[in-house]
Amino acid sequence: MSSTQERLVIIGGDAAGMSAASQARRLRSPDELEIVAFERGRFTSYSACGIPYWVGGAVDERDDLVARTPEEHRERAIDLRMRTEVCRIDVPGRRVLARDLEGGEEYWTAYDKLVIATGARPLRPSLPGIDAPGVHGVQTLGDGQALIDTLERTEDRRTEGRRAVVVGAGYIGVEMAEAMIQRGYDVTVVNRGKEPMSTLDPDMGRLVHDAMTGLGIEMVNDTEVTKILTGDDGRVRAVATENAEYPADVVILGVGVRPETELAREAGLPLGEHGGLLTDLAMRVRGHENIWAGGDCVEVLDLMSGRERHIALGTHANKHGQVIGSNVGGSYATFPGVVGTAVSKVCDLEIARTGLREKDALAAGLRFVSVTIESTSRAGYYPGAALMTVKMLAERRTGKLLGVQIVGREGAGKRVDVAAVALTAGMTVEQMTALDLGYAPPFSPVWDPILVAARKAVAAVRADTASS
Amino acid sequence: MSSTQERLVIIGGDAAGMSAASQARRLRSPDELEIVAFERGRFTSYSACGIPYWVGGAVDERDDLVARTPEEHRERAIDLRMRTEVCRIDVPGRRVLARDLEGGEEYWTAYDKLVIATGARPLRPSLPGIDAPGVHGVQTLGDGQALIDTLERTEDRRTEGRRAVVVGAGYIGVEMAEAMIQRGYDVTVVNRGKEPMSTLDPDMGRLVHDAMTGLGIEMVNDTEVTKILTGDDGRVRAVATENAEYPADVVILGVGVRPETELAREAGLPLGEHGGLLTDLAMRVRGHENIWAGGDCVEVLDLMSGRERHIALGTHANKHGQVIGSNVGGSYATFPGVVGTAVSKVCDLEIARTGLREKDALAAGLRFVSVTIESTSRAGYYPGAALMTVKMLAERRTGKLLGVQIVGREGAGKRVDVAAVALTAGMTVEQMTALDLGYAPPFSPVWDPILVAARKAVAAVRADTASS
Repeated sequence: MSSTQERLVIIGGDAAGMSAASQARRLRSPDELEIVAFERGRFTSYSACGIPYWVGGAVDERDDLVARTPEEHRERAIDLRMRTEVCRIDVPGRRVLARDLEGGEEYWTAYDKLVIATGARPLRPSLPGIDAPGVHGVQTLGDGQALIDTLERTEDRRTEGRRAVVVGAGYIGVEMAEAMIQRGYDVTVVNRGKEPMSTLDPDMGRLVHDAMTGLGIEMVNDTEVTKILTGDDGRVRAVATENAEYPADVVILGVGVRPETELAREAGLPLGEHGGLLTDLAMRVRGHENIWAGGDCVEVLDLMSGRERHIALGTHANKHGQVIGSNVGGSYATFPGVVGTAVSKVCDLEIARTGLREKDALAAGLRFVSVTIESTSRAGYYPGAALMTVKMLAERRTGKLLGVQIVGREGAGKRVDVAAVALTAGMTVEQMTALDLGYAPPFSPVWDPILVAARKAVAAVRADTASS
Repeated sequence: MSSTQERLVIIGGDAAGMSAASQARRLRSPDELEIVAFERGRFTSYSACGIPYWVGGAVDERDDLVARTPEEHRERAIDLRMRTEVCRIDVPGRRVLARDLEGGEEYWTAYDKLVIATGARPLRPSLPGIDAPGVHGVQTLGDGQALIDTLERTEDRRTEGRRAVVVGAGYIGVEMAEAMIQRGYDVTVVNRGKEPMSTLDPDMGRLVHDAMTGLGIEMVNDTEVTKILTGDDGRVRAVATENAEYPADVVILGVGVRPETELAREAGLPLGEHGGLLTDLAMRVRGHENIWAGGDCVEVLDLMSGRERHIALGTHANKHGQVIGSNVGGSYATFPGVVGTAVSKVCDLEIARTGLREKDALAAGLRFVSVTIESTSRAGYYPGAALMTVKMLAERRTGKLLGVQIVGREGAGKRVDVAAVALTAGMTVEQMTALDLGYAPPFSPVWDPILVAARKAVAAVRADTASS
């Protein structure tokens, strides 16, 4: 290390960590900044969001999901140490203790600047049988590979009547339900919530329920799994609930994730109520001049409620990495927060949301009107015009847009982006009715569904104001 | 007419006029407001934008394009007089002179409030042979029917080697080129501009040119039509330019439209530099308390340049009608202006734009940086990921977004809406890089193409600021 050279240490080699590394390297040469990155797994910079599509067969190869390999990072003068886990952060001593998971040796590495990008870990309910072979999470590429190995073994054994049980009906749950349908399994989804997709209001979740049932998926809502049952071979054979047993060749867990912040907690770094690291707008850990954090291990500011949330999503992780890399590299950038946009699909059903649900708005102390409309993705007379339902929440009195949820077919999901920008800009639903959105019959009805919803919301706000 | 009843007279029975009528009727009962609407054609409330798809066969029936028939309007207590042309507006006398085009009689009708929604007329170059049978505009449903009659006659005569020449390469021109391809014609487009789609910058227009050529369309740019040549039967047989002749069974004119404001001009109402009526933000004709105007016959405020423009587009016409009907009916609404969003397609090529082109920005006195990026509609590894090119203009120094143009395949076009909302909100490209847009592999790369362009624009603004 030359006297003016600084060392940046990064913990975690996926989206946030390696984006930070790449951006810092763009801004600072190896002479100025040494970059050491530790990754405990076997892969870097991959799309965890793509795992369901790899399992389902839409994506051919595991390597298709890898945006940049360890070798590619090393070519950019990043000292990347794979299969190496950081097991302690010594904040006052400005050093981390790393352990080589292959060889077993431990060593300290000093840092001038530290980036924590340890990601999230999937929740794993402590149920009897949960560790049986055939029960799989889908958080990492390694998880995906293990699941595919199980599936291929199952498919070698028999060609018909293969059964999968998915536990959980959030994004991962519904995407894995699709994947297993694509692979030809009979699929049961066991879901603790009253409806699938608890990131939507229940009335919109019901539309997802109906569509999934229509796809031949058995939906079991409002039900807790009590036990994983195993066969004589020790492998999973069924999922038990209080009232029933659901036979299963494979069980997939999609019950959510938590920030992976044990290391940070032990180091005394500040965590929020969801267990994620707390940062400032430049993604610096609060109270620590030289430590940054980003990706699935942090909490982000929800611009709609003014509160922190934990959202594990690759697009945020990449933005965090970009911001961290810019700041670490001596430039300047901020991550102002999120409005809570998410989009997903189950076969041809598209599901999207942004902003606040009814219960979020209530929890934030906001009072609102809510409207729901049906419209189509294209002019009604144009081939392929597909139905969608749009729900819109607007604040009472002010008419400020609070949230939008969309459930529909092709062309529905990404329409949520218009609402996401309108939320970011603080628009009222009245302002939204005048938005100059692209119109031509193959792309939209003459009133885009978002505009139809905004018009109805305007009327609801007016009626509410007049009556109270 | 009861003593307190007012009479609203509407000139023009398409989108703007009949939306105004419907909205006014929602707010005011027949006892309060009599509504008389004059339409010189045979149809009401139809989608002119849908005509290319009817001609091309994607839409089966003419009536599919009619949102509401005369009978349906009459059922809502609107006194709709079809095939009746208003031939004079007596502004001081508050009355219009109408002529029954079937019977021939003329009569005056008094109004308390007047709505002018006379639409646009297609430009028809004064060329030798322009009136020959087989030369068609596509502005009205009647025009569409006449064209289809010609095509069916051609198709009865021979099954191969049918040739269509489209004059003009704007929205109508490219959409009609697609329609004729769909009908199995050999298509030549003769275009005065250097590239097709002059609503784009030439570099983006070149992408459209290349794609159209790839579709087998013969593109003749930078060329004026000099003459329409006819055969012994008097019907069109070719289109002549200075250097060549292009054989044609049918010629379709798509050289733009002008506001249909002869009536308004004769009545002394204020017209703008593009020939359209000038209104205030409530869509009231400037200087006239009781006259409103909307749709293709008015000029609209371009929020980006602060100048008036003429944009013939059904979505604006519907909004104008809605605003006019609200104000006429005693409620309140405004049309704040446009940012100039438009979207179109030629077969699988999607074309979109919003805001200012380079030459618009220069004309408005703005200096800017311009960036162009390539990205995909979905995660690169996800099936169906389609290429798109996004061009983004940002103001120097401030980094304010000025415009976006997109040319690509499926999933490209409607992405322009994000930029349209950002323009409306006055966002900078730096703010845009943090936009919380929907991400999942089937819907977007982890950085949405709009975000990729915004990031590059941020870098360009910074570099420009640093260097000057």
